[in-house]
Formats: sequence, C-alpha cells, structure tokens
Amino acid sequence: MFKKYDVIVVGAGHAGCEAAAAAANLGSSVLLVTMNMGTIAQMSCNPAMGGVAKGQIVREIDAMGGYSGIISDKSTIQFRMLNRSKGPAMWSPRTQNDRMRFAEEWRLALEKTPNVDFWQDMVSSLIVKDNKVCGVVTSLGVEIESSSVVLTNGTFLNGVIHIGEKRMGGGRTGEKSATGITEQLVELGFESGRMKTGTPPRVDGRSLDYSKMEEQWGDDDGGRFSYTEVEKPKEQRCCWITYTNAAVHEALKEGFEKSPMFTGRIKGLGPRYCPSIEDKINRFAERERHQIFVEPEGFNTVEIYVNGFSTSLPEDVQQKALRLIPGFENAKMFRPGYAIEYDFFPPTQLGLSLETKLIQNLFFAGQINGTTGYEEAAAQGFIAGINAHQKVNEKPVLILKRSESYIGVLIDDLVTKGTEEPYRMFTSRAEHRLLLRQDNADERLSPIAHQLGLINDERLNKVNEKIANSLAIVQFMKEQSISKEIANPILEALETSAISQSAKLHNLLGRPQISINDLRKMSLDLDDYLNQFDRETIEQAEIKIKYDSYFEKELEIVGKMKKMEDKEINPEFNYHQLQSLSKEAREKLMKIKPRTLGQASRISGVTPSDVSVLMVHISK
Amino acid sequence: MFKKYDVIVVGAGHAGCEAAAAAANLGSSVLLVTMNMGTIAQMSCNPAMGGVAKGQIVREIDAMGGYSGIISDKSTIQFRMLNRSKGPAMWSPRTQNDRMRFAEEWRLALEKTPNVDFWQDMVSSLIVKDNKVCGVVTSLGVEIESSSVVLTNGTFLNGVIHIGEKRMGGGRTGEKSATGITEQLVELGFESGRMKTGTPPRVDGRSLDYSKMEEQWGDDDGGRFSYTEVEKPKEQRCCWITYTNAAVHEALKEGFEKSPMFTGRIKGLGPRYCPSIEDKINRFAERERHQIFVEPEGFNTVEIYVNGFSTSLPEDVQQKALRLIPGFENAKMFRPGYAIEYDFFPPTQLGLSLETKLIQNLFFAGQINGTTGYEEAAAQGFIAGINAHQKVNEKPVLILKRSESYIGVLIDDLVTKGTEEPYRMFTSRAEHRLLLRQDNADERLSPIAHQLGLINDERLNKVNEKIANSLAIVQFMKEQSISKEIANPILEALETSAISQSAKLHNLLGRPQISINDLRKMSLDLDDYLNQFDRETIEQAEIKIKYDSYFEKELEIVGKMKKMEDKEINPEFNYHQLQSLSKEAREKLMKIKPRTLGQASRISGVTPSDVSVLMVHISK
Repeated sequence: MFKKYDVIVVGAGHAGCEAAAAAANLGSSVLLVTMNMGTIAQMSCNPAMGGVAKGQIVREIDAMGGYSGIISDKSTIQFRMLNRSKGPAMWSPRTQNDRMRFAEEWRLALEKTPNVDFWQDMVSSLIVKDNKVCGVVTSLGVEIESSSVVLTNGTFLNGVIHIGEKRMGGGRTGEKSATGITEQLVELGFESGRMKTGTPPRVDGRSLDYSKMEEQWGDDDGGRFSYTEVEKPKEQRCCWITYTNAAVHEALKEGFEKSPMFTGRIKGLGPRYCPSIEDKINRFAERERHQIFVEPEGFNTVEIYVNGFSTSLPEDVQQKALRLIPGFENAKMFRPGYAIEYDFFPPTQLGLSLETKLIQNLFFAGQINGTTGYEEAAAQGFIAGINAHQKVNEKPVLILKRSESYIGVLIDDLVTKGTEEPYRMFTSRAEHRLLLRQDNADERLSPIAHQLGLINDERLNKVNEKIANSLAIVQFMKEQSISKEIANPILEALETSAISQSAKLHNLLGRPQISINDLRKMSLDLDDYLNQFDRETIEQAEIKIKYDSYFEKELEIVGKMKKMEDKEINPEFNYHQLQSLSKEAREKLMKIKPRTLGQASRISGVTPSDVSVLMVHISK
Repeated sequence: MFKKYDVIVVGAGHAGCEAAAAAANLGSSVLLVTMNMGTIAQMSCNPAMGGVAKGQIVREIDAMGGYSGIISDKSTIQFRMLNRSKGPAMWSPRTQNDRMRFAEEWRLALEKTPNVDFWQDMVSSLIVKDNKVCGVVTSLGVEIESSSVVLTNGTFLNGVIHIGEKRMGGGRTGEKSATGITEQLVELGFESGRMKTGTPPRVDGRSLDYSKMEEQWGDDDGGRFSYTEVEKPKEQRCCWITYTNAAVHEALKEGFEKSPMFTGRIKGLGPRYCPSIEDKINRFAERERHQIFVEPEGFNTVEIYVNGFSTSLPEDVQQKALRLIPGFENAKMFRPGYAIEYDFFPPTQLGLSLETKLIQNLFFAGQINGTTGYEEAAAQGFIAGINAHQKVNEKPVLILKRSESYIGVLIDDLVTKGTEEPYRMFTSRAEHRLLLRQDNADERLSPIAHQLGLINDERLNKVNEKIANSLAIVQFMKEQSISKEIANPILEALETSAISQSAKLHNLLGRPQISINDLRKMSLDLDDYLNQFDRETIEQAEIKIKYDSYFEKELEIVGKMKKMEDKEINPEFNYHQLQSLSKEAREKLMKIKPRTLGQASRISGVTPSDVSVLMVHISK
C-alpha cells in the first residue's frame, strides 16, 4: 500500500524530524514513521534549546539549512546569550521554549516540506536483505519498502520507567515503549547496551511563591538562533532561580533505600553532567546547596519545569523534598520526576556518515547512539538524513571535520571512541573551539550546505555578503585614525592608557577594555560607516579584529594536523597484516575502521607509535 | 502526599474537563487525574463540535457556565448554523475546530480555574468504605483521598483497538489503555458491558485533489456557541464534500472477510447513527454512494479527517478504497481508521444526578455510561461535576427536567431506559423540542446556573436584559402599524397577499414569507428602534412572534405532564409490597428507583395501569 521510499525515518523526535527534513529537502522521498502523530517533536525533558556548546550546534544546524534553530526561535519565550563576559568562543545562545508551540511548529514545518510523508505506527522490525536494509515492518504488519532507513528511537526501545520502587514500560510517561527492533539488531550481530536518563517533576506554577526566588530574564536585545529572518514572539517570560538546602538533602536521603539508582535496579549509566538530584547530593556531599532553575513550560501554561531536580525517588519523597525549597513550600506536583532505561547501540558500530557498518543504508541517530540532549540528537539526525540521501543517490557522504564544526567533533567522538555513558557536548571536547563559534557557523558551514543543495544561492549570497562586509569594516578600521584629543578622554573613562599620537581604530579595538561601540562614540565617521550594516556583521568584524591573532594560531595548528586528517585509509584495510602494530591497536582499528589517519590517532589504544607505523604504511 | 480533595475527576476528556471545571467553579477542591497531561481534551474523533441536537447541548452547557462552547468558539475554523431553513427548534450550531487549539484552550482554561489541581497518573482502583467512595489509588501506588469521585474513562477501560485482523490494547491509537477499574467495579456489584466505536483514516491534505470536490464554507455572519463575548478567530477554513461510489464499495467488500465487525471479533455494539463505512454499504446495499465530508484538522495542518469513512478494515483495504473516491486518487494516509472496544456500565445503575446507586459519592459521566459524542460526554461531565460538589456539601443535587433541556432528556433517557448501543442525542428524543432551542438555552438555564452559583449576577442580568428587550420588541411590533401603501409593494415582492388596510407589524411577521428584516425595510421606525439591540435579541423577538402559538401549546402540554413530573417518589420505596403492580414493573422499578412518577412512567415495562397504581398509592 506504500510506494517505495528513498528514506524511512523511524521516530519523530529532534533527530527524526531533522533527518526527515534534510533528506526531503535534498530531494529524497521520505516517510516519517511515528507512534503518535500527536506527539511529534516533543521536548521530553527541559523546555529549552542550546546552551554552552549545544547552542553552537543549533547554530551549525541552522547554518546548513536544518530546522532546529528556526523552530526554537519561533517558540522562544526567552533568549539568552550565555557567557557574554567571556571570549566569543564561549558565547552560547540558549532559548527557553514554549513546549507546545515548539512541537506544533516542528510538525507544521514538516508538513510544509513537500517530500515528507507521515505514517502513525510502530516500526517493529527492519527488512534486511544481503546485509542491506530495504524497508521496515510495522506493528500493524505493514511492510514498507525503502532504499534506506534512519533509526531515531530515542528512549523508546524497551523503555522502562522507574519511580521509586515502581517500574513500568514506556518511552515517556504516559506513552508506550517500542519493542522488537533491539532484538532483531542483536540477532543481526549488533552489540546493544542499556542507558538511563531522567527528568524532574513538573509542578503547578500557581502553587509557587516567586517572591522567594531570583528573577532570571532573557536578553533585552532579542538575539536568535537562526541566521534567517524568522519571526520571533515579541514577548518574553521570566524564569527564576532558587536553591536546595540541607533540609532538602536530608528529605531526599530518606528515600535512598527506595531509589532505583542506589538499589541497583537501574543498570544503565546515566548522563554524568546532568545528574539526578540524588546523585548530586551523593557525589557532592560537601555541597550545601544546588541551584534550581524554575522554568515555565510555555507562554500561557502554569506548568513549571524544575530544572536541576531530576529524580527517580518515590513520588512522595520528591514532593516532601521539593516543598523544602524556598518558594516551593506549597508546591503541587503535576507529574513526578522519573528515570528511564532504554536500549542503545555503542556508536563505534557506525561509520562517520552514521551508517552502520554491519547493515548497509541503515543509519542511527540520537539517543540510540548513546548521546543525551536535543541538540546532539538533532545534529545526528540532520547528518544521518543528509547521508541517507547521499548514499541512496550514490553521492559522496558528508563528513564534517572536527576543525570545522561541533557536529564533526560529536560524530567523530562517538564513532571513534564510543561512549560508556550518555554523551553530551562540551566546548572542551573541541580542540579547535576558538574556531567553532556561534557567530561564524554560517561562515564555516553554509558553503558546504550550499554545495549539497540544502540552502539556496540567495542564502549563500547573504553569508558571503556578511563576510565581505565584516572584512570591509576591518579594512575601514585599519585605515581610519582618531586623534588623541578626541580619544583620550574616552580612553581614560574606560580605564585604558591614553595615546600619545593619533591611532588606528583597528589598534584601539585590540584593547580588551574597548568595544566597537566605544569607538563609535569617538568617531562619527565610523558610526556613519557602520550604520549601513546589521548587528551581526558589525559583531563579526569586532570579533575578527579582537581575536585575530588567536584565530590565526589556531588555524596554524589545524593546518599542521591537516596532513593527518586528510590522509585517507581504506576502511576495508586489514590491520592484522601489519604486525608492527600493537595487538590492541590492530583490534581497535579493525573494529572502528577509521577513514583517516587523524581518526585512527584518536582511537583509544592506538598509540603514537602505532600512528607512525600506519603513516609509513599508508605513504607507500 | 496529597491533601484530601472534595472531588477527584478521573480522565480529562470532554466529560472530565467539564466535571472538573464545574465542581471547581462551585468551590470544590478538585484533582483532575489524567494519564497524560499532554493529551488533555483531545478530540479523539472528528474535529467538530455541535450539530443537530448536539449544538443545542453545547449551548445549554454554555448557558450554565460550562466551558465547551467557549473553547469551541476559540478554536473554530468554521461555524455553521445547520437547518436555518427549518423552524427555530431545528436550528443547530456546529463548528469545525482546530484540534490542537481546542485541546490547548481547554488545558489553559482549566489551568486558569483556581480550584483545579492536576496529576498525571493512571487511576487503577477506587478506595471504597461502607459503600462510599473515599478516594483513588493510582498505578504509581499513590492513594489520594477525596469526598467524591467522577469517573470519565471514555474508551480507555480495557480498550482494544482493531484494524483488520490486528488487535492491540489502547485507549486511542498510540496511547495506552486503562486497567483495573472495571474489574473492581464488577466485584463491587456493578454490571459492565462492552461497546465499540470507530474512527476514519486521517489523510495528507497535500495529496488530495480538491477540484473534484464541492466546497463547503461556514456561515458568513460569524455565529458562535457561547452566550459570552469570547473572541473568535477571524479567519475560516473551507471543508469539502465528495462521495463514495460503486467501485469504492466493491473495494471495501474485498476486505469484509478480514473485518473484525463481520467476523465476530468485535463483540461490542457500535453507534447506530454513526456507522462505519462497511456497515453503511452492508446495511444500505441499495445506496449507490455515501457522502464524505473532508474536514481539515486545523488552521495550518495538512491533516484531513475523512468524515463518513469510519472503518476497521485492514489498512491496505482502507487505502485502496479511499483512492477510488473522487479527489482521493493519490491520497496518502497518515493513520488508518480503527475500531475500539471498551468497557461501559449500563447507566440504569445511576440516579438522575449521575451518582451510582451502589456506591455513594461515585459519579459516572461520558462514554463509561454508554453514550457517544463529545457533547453528550461534556453535558454529563458538567452535571456530574455539579452534583459531586452538591453532594459533598449536602446541597440538593441538580436534576434538569426533560421539558427544560436536552441535557435533562439525555440523562433521564440513560438512567431510566438504559442503552444497548452507544447513545447519541437527536431532536426526536426530546418530546418538548420546540421549547429546547439553541436560541433560548440562556433563558431556560442561566437562572438555574445562577442560583447554583455557576454564573455571576452580571451574566444573569444580561440574560434578563435580553429577555426584556426581546419582549419590548414584541410589544413595539404589536403597537406599530404600517400603511398598505408602503407595505403592499414589498409584500407583493415577497409573494404574500396584500393588505387592505394598515396592519400591525406583529401580525405581518406572523406570515411565514416575511422576516423581521423585511419589515425593517418597510418601517423606518422599526429599523430605528431595532438599531439599539444586538442580533440575538432581535432574533429572539422574531422567534417569539413567529412561533408563539406553537410554544404556548407546547407549554400547555408540559403543564399537563407537570403533575406527574413533580410527583416525587421515595427512591427507597419497596415496590414488591405493591402486589397490584405487574411483576415486570415491580422488578424494573426496584432497579431504576425513579425519583418521580414521570420518570417511572418512562421505564420500559411499566404500563399505564402500573402508573395509575403508583399514582393512587403515592397520593395516599
């Protein structure tokens, strides 16, 4: 009853939605299969997108024509550029989102994507012939043929929810789990594991006393994720900050004997950097308090997300402890927090394209690969969707480099090193993070997306125009001088040393105390000149001038490593024949099948001397 | 961990939402327990409210301060007053609704109702002591105390979904079923049964060819359900009409051998007046075609509801047949139609307050009572919510009369006669339907609601003002005459006989060919006078004048029956002692425990001579 699709995407969370959109926008016919068309693009956990390193990922997806940034902007109730006080590599956009709007906007966006069809059903198995996937079978017994399949099952594969001593099957609370796929993949030779994640209770905002909390507003100047001019809501909504205390911790400890975490009922490892509150008070016993972000779930709803209070303790313990938090004295819960265990597949079973090594044209993206986070999921889905299209059309797959994107770092880390616990992106994971900034994701990636056909000429032209304009500003400031008479009073006010003769604007901007806005006050010529450009272009120029020397150094390093990164290895190479490699290296290399010498060098167990052996061999 | 609530409402569909709002607005503390806070107030079936008899129910709920009318108005994509060409008793408002908006508006309305708390969990049993309900136990094992419980489980109790030969547990597709409650109630002595309902496939609007269908727009003049001045969306969206044909029927018949309806796998009876398409072509084999309403699911979504094509045939049969319908040649399905079987409790086990006879303070509302339809469910929920509050506070329960409301007819029918198949409201069920009009629901019911405390003085004053104004218009028209010179040319154009001397406006309006708008054209005085009133008031006056004699006759009949309707019977009366009653009558009367002689007279098996015996006895 179905035509044969180019790509079937299983699951419609952040990964599945981006995968479907990307493949469809490249021209593939796509079928998005979801267990419930009413729950497409749910924010299962916190109602927020972005943040440190994650915001950069959203910008990267957006720069390449993915939808996550646009959807986040359309549904944002508050935007903040985190780490503004630090260097630009640390600037990280983050939105609080209206959960319902977010889901609705995603669904409408997919409905407007001509090549995406929908089918509500549970995929229970894959059709595999000669180690190649050719479609899926659903719980209704429908067989649907396709040239490729992207699995984005999230937490649904054999999902088990824990609240205290209670266990129930489910992919999220109130929703069914998905069964069948893990068992089939294991039979096909895949290794599977079990991971765990959790979510805090949701409470009734009408029962909170906000006067006991700190207000946390978004930025006034209305930043956004997307490089496109998507319309954002005009209003913003306040969040709040409060803290746990010793009494809260004591109340939580009383539930430890019923905690599925501590009694060993939960076997899967949880996200280290997003621990449950019981984990936090256990691991950091010396901490007297932990911060709680009180986040509204939308513009109008009274439902509140208690960020920082993820827990799987019994619901009565959750409530008792919650009510000891300032402002939560009368808090009413809507739903308790819970932990969920689910199946994942160690991502070393994938190539850098996110295609599985065992089954051709089968791609994995999102939590199924052992990651955590909407942004990480969306990024993988986006790449998997692109590569499913490319593979089906016998075009080269897209592999982003570590030196050009967080997405490249993410996938290279997963595929090369695997992960024992839910993998989350950090700036520290990117060795070239100075180059991987939120402000230049378009510069880094839009040309690649344009070449693939994901963004049109007009959009690329705008990126190029922005680059040209920012360079023009740099040039203008290199040429324009300012007299000491005008400059010095202002320099003094900024507590930076006076100049003894007129100085180039460019040189003054190099000083950490001086911003381009300060210079605009000194030089009407500059101010006039800048008036023709938008904020992002001017900011870009400012960053270029202020950090130029750092960027150049970083680029040098990238250049040096390029030799290794560009040195390709035949993935079918038989490392066992290279006896001069260590035994461990041979085994790991056979397993990972790196595509480049650079990737080989990052495999744990592959030593520098192994790399030398490889280099010599490959050069032959 | 919970306080003791006055009222716990189980289920958050149309019945549960109205029940929670009504009890809370009367001052009860209410806990609304739902399996999924993301699916509150789902329109599980068609995205529409109202229609013949059902629209009157929505108006009645609105007139009493319920929310269904307001929510429908806020989410309406198209409004139509059906049967405008017939008498005003047949006028029936109907909206097409944006499914997502409808659910969201309901949730926000409940969140704004101060006494409503929420808890996401499945109720698995009731706490019952001494034949009185005292709370619920959930699947998390939480015990929540309350003074009363309203069960509105819809299709979730042991729900089983059928599509062709496939069966799966679920309360709706993609959602879990609820278990435990039926078993407990049966143990407590309740009789339970099995019913069935169904829903059509949803299709991708992008795959339809609307040029082959008839457009169906809403009314231009923007009617609404609510008597309040709720803001309605400004735009409307088109629906379409198309038809099945012999080829469609043939294709469907090919699937009959796999139909759960015809192979006996479905035991429950389905709604007779909302049959599946396979039922229709089976029962009405002579019909060459059946009408299909093509209804958008919202303002922006491409999802389409195929009204009239409800089916549980295998999904490939559904698709094959669908594609033979004009305009559906390339239709892509989003989700197949399905049938669902679920538990209900014959409503003769309830009193007219919707409290169960076996367990005190336990109320049932909606599909659990064997009804079908959003409006029927909402009405029962509304009354059950009111009466749970009244009972808990030892106040008289609210029992609406058959002569004052469709809601009274609905509940009296259910409780007195029971139902073998899903009960749907029709105008023909109301013996006094001339009085139960959509235009006067406020006049009939707002005073009652005001007395209860459900609507405020201001609102009642507006109703009284409308009544007074419409009577003033009637009076004005009784007094004002029009000359034959002015009237006759217009009368001639309207094809009604000329007048030989000047006539009262009131008399002219009595003629079926003449509307009040025609008279406005004849009489500038009238036009001037009417300009001060709103449309509804003028319409009310027009109806009063045109149908006055009919209404008076109907009121006479009501008056005659009043004696019997007002004659109360002690519900604990032991009919077995009245040997002059027939045996059947004694048994039925013991079971139903009628509250009035009128109700007793409607019990099937109670003959007029039984009624005489009762009357004689009660008069003693």
